[in-house]
Amino acid sequence: MPDRPPPLAGLTVIDLGQVYQGPYAGLLMAKAGANVIKVEPPHGEPLRVREALGGGASLPLAMLNSNKRAITLNLKSPRGVELLKALIAKADVLLENFAPGVMDKLGVGAEVLMAANPRLIYASATGYGLTGPERDNLAMDITIQAASGAISVTGFEDGPPVKAGPAIADFLSGTHLYGAIVTALYERERTGRGRLVEVAMIEAMFPTLASNLGMIHNNPDRPLGRTGNRHGGLAVSPYNVYACKDGWFAIICTNEEHWRSLARAMGRPELPDDPRFSTNAERVKHMAETDAIVEAWAANLTRAEIFAAAGAHRVPAAPVRDLYEVLDNEHMKGRGMIEVIDHPSLGRISVPGSPLRYHGTPQTPATPSPSIGADNVEVYGELLGLAPEKVEALKIEGAI
Amino acid sequence: MPDRPPPLAGLTVIDLGQVYQGPYAGLLMAKAGANVIKVEPPHGEPLRVREALGGGASLPLAMLNSNKRAITLNLKSPRGVELLKALIAKADVLLENFAPGVMDKLGVGAEVLMAANPRLIYASATGYGLTGPERDNLAMDITIQAASGAISVTGFEDGPPVKAGPAIADFLSGTHLYGAIVTALYERERTGRGRLVEVAMIEAMFPTLASNLGMIHNNPDRPLGRTGNRHGGLAVSPYNVYACKDGWFAIICTNEEHWRSLARAMGRPELPDDPRFSTNAERVKHMAETDAIVEAWAANLTRAEIFAAAGAHRVPAAPVRDLYEVLDNEHMKGRGMIEVIDHPSLGRISVPGSPLRYHGTPQTPATPSPSIGADNVEVYGELLGLAPEKVEALKIEGAI
Repeated sequence: MPDRPPPLAGLTVIDLGQVYQGPYAGLLMAKAGANVIKVEPPHGEPLRVREALGGGASLPLAMLNSNKRAITLNLKSPRGVELLKALIAKADVLLENFAPGVMDKLGVGAEVLMAANPRLIYASATGYGLTGPERDNLAMDITIQAASGAISVTGFEDGPPVKAGPAIADFLSGTHLYGAIVTALYERERTGRGRLVEVAMIEAMFPTLASNLGMIHNNPDRPLGRTGNRHGGLAVSPYNVYACKDGWFAIICTNEEHWRSLARAMGRPELPDDPRFSTNAERVKHMAETDAIVEAWAANLTRAEIFAAAGAHRVPAAPVRDLYEVLDNEHMKGRGMIEVIDHPSLGRISVPGSPLRYHGTPQTPATPSPSIGADNVEVYGELLGLAPEKVEALKIEGAI
Repeated sequence: MPDRPPPLAGLTVIDLGQVYQGPYAGLLMAKAGANVIKVEPPHGEPLRVREALGGGASLPLAMLNSNKRAITLNLKSPRGVELLKALIAKADVLLENFAPGVMDKLGVGAEVLMAANPRLIYASATGYGLTGPERDNLAMDITIQAASGAISVTGFEDGPPVKAGPAIADFLSGTHLYGAIVTALYERERTGRGRLVEVAMIEAMFPTLASNLGMIHNNPDRPLGRTGNRHGGLAVSPYNVYACKDGWFAIICTNEEHWRSLARAMGRPELPDDPRFSTNAERVKHMAETDAIVEAWAANLTRAEIFAAAGAHRVPAAPVRDLYEVLDNEHMKGRGMIEVIDHPSLGRISVPGSPLRYHGTPQTPATPSPSIGADNVEVYGELLGLAPEKVEALKIEGAI
């Protein structure tokens, strides 16, 4: 069968996203075939500024902005505002992750733009949402990790709270933003009408705490919620990261079969007959002893040896990989999730594909993230019919 | 203006999801107005089994399955397979997060079901994906946090690697799954055709490491990637969680204005004139000294005092909230993101709303998660026209 076109082919997206949250939603749209135009102020979005630090600070921008074209636009100039309105008339989606009210103050809020184009999907991503008493609290990944409770439940009980290393608040909410946009696009096919859709980082975090909230439910001891590498609800055992000869290894038994298999893998097939270890409920009660047994076994083995033993017995387990191993991962490279490209300013780098796969359509290969305003002439020409000299004049005027 | 119907009204979803990943996608669909039918084997999905532990182990199931109806179905019986095929003829979406190949072995894989209903969206969520050398590695949240690199970059440089407390791999991939499904629904409106869509947990994690990958990019020292509560790429300063009188507090300065504001808030307006602290690039070079200054200031203040000072000067900052504070949060409760309901088996509990907001349509209020098979008679009657006695007979026969 011939390949099918990508599912979002034909859609035009004005991506005002900055840093991770907004741009990730735009990346997922670009990878699904949409025509995504990254719009930045003349001095660049915040990541461009960080990019000036050089070294690794420039990689994230390249990771999040493949397959987009880039234009500049000065929304603080009246002419810039006019240009945005003109672009919106040609667009299906506008996405932005400015603080609440910023776009309204510039005169290009959801109400104004959707009145001009009732088919527009206006997508807002903020830290705390467009309403409510905390609406105007400033938000970044780390502050949302703090305010959402995520930091309080990460780390060891007797140690300080710890931020999750990955930018989970940014990416979780960016992914939700994508979902909200595409839902509204689906609906528009049926109703002909656009929508204002909204995602708040702090709200995208809340459901992820299900296990942890389980632990404190009706627990009069008011536990902290920090369980190290154990289950967030202390409801499953074994469930931990164990030190081994050459690093660390995660093992989890979610049912009795896994546990019997692990016991065999450890050469201790009699363990499930011991009343202390006979059921998950008992092992949870004897969690320290259960962990000590697995730990003692793991301590003398390498990650490869543990993986081989666990795999042979069908026990869910995985090595703790470092970033170098992740970048070298043949599985993700083979599937196109990690793509090694030659980037004009960064050289050879690894960029993400899309975790969203549509069978019947090949993955969209990465084109390198554009430099600031790289596509001004092309995009303003294509969408607004402006001649190159006109685009140049707008630049000199400070409108773009 | 009158309220608009929810965007996914009219769609029927067969939700074979288990634990968090699949059920979360189903929850987002239910909250957006779809008719979501949770399908479990006669003994219940794995979380039901964990539920038998009692106490907190039962809360997560209730959090993830509001607004769904529940039926049982034994896919290991030929009659059960027939029933699924009959249900699929009436459905728009099937979602499942079994291991790769499980549905195929049961005779109800994507190919079979989509041949029977070419408009079906078949959505598969797995740990490593449906193809590739690691396809058959068993996967749970903790093993994916390990294999994706997330654990290796969480924690302090001189301490062990730490799992993020929230179930980030489950929820990130569940959110991507929702996005993939809705994208295919959008496309179906235009083409009339369904799709097999696929999300792998490990791939949904990769983009979240952008900052961390930035740090190792071209860094010959091969750093571990664990930066405690500092920026994952060590590219921003101040950026940390600081101990204070009554807990911990997150502060971040993403630009020079934030830093000048923080300096004023700390009563040290002269700091930005010091060459060591004059630019983010300089502060990154003097990160320990920069952090020490903020730390000394925070140490004598409460979270409320820091928040007031930071807020007055517009510095992004937030207290590290514990789970009790999160559940009491008036902002999320007021916005309907945390809903307090009386659950028939659990009593008064807090369940999540949807982080996806569609302006013009009120949030869908939570109906409590159903007990196992609670809606057998209703759903089999409604979708397949089976009389209650027939449903009873199927139960006795072991088909449902």
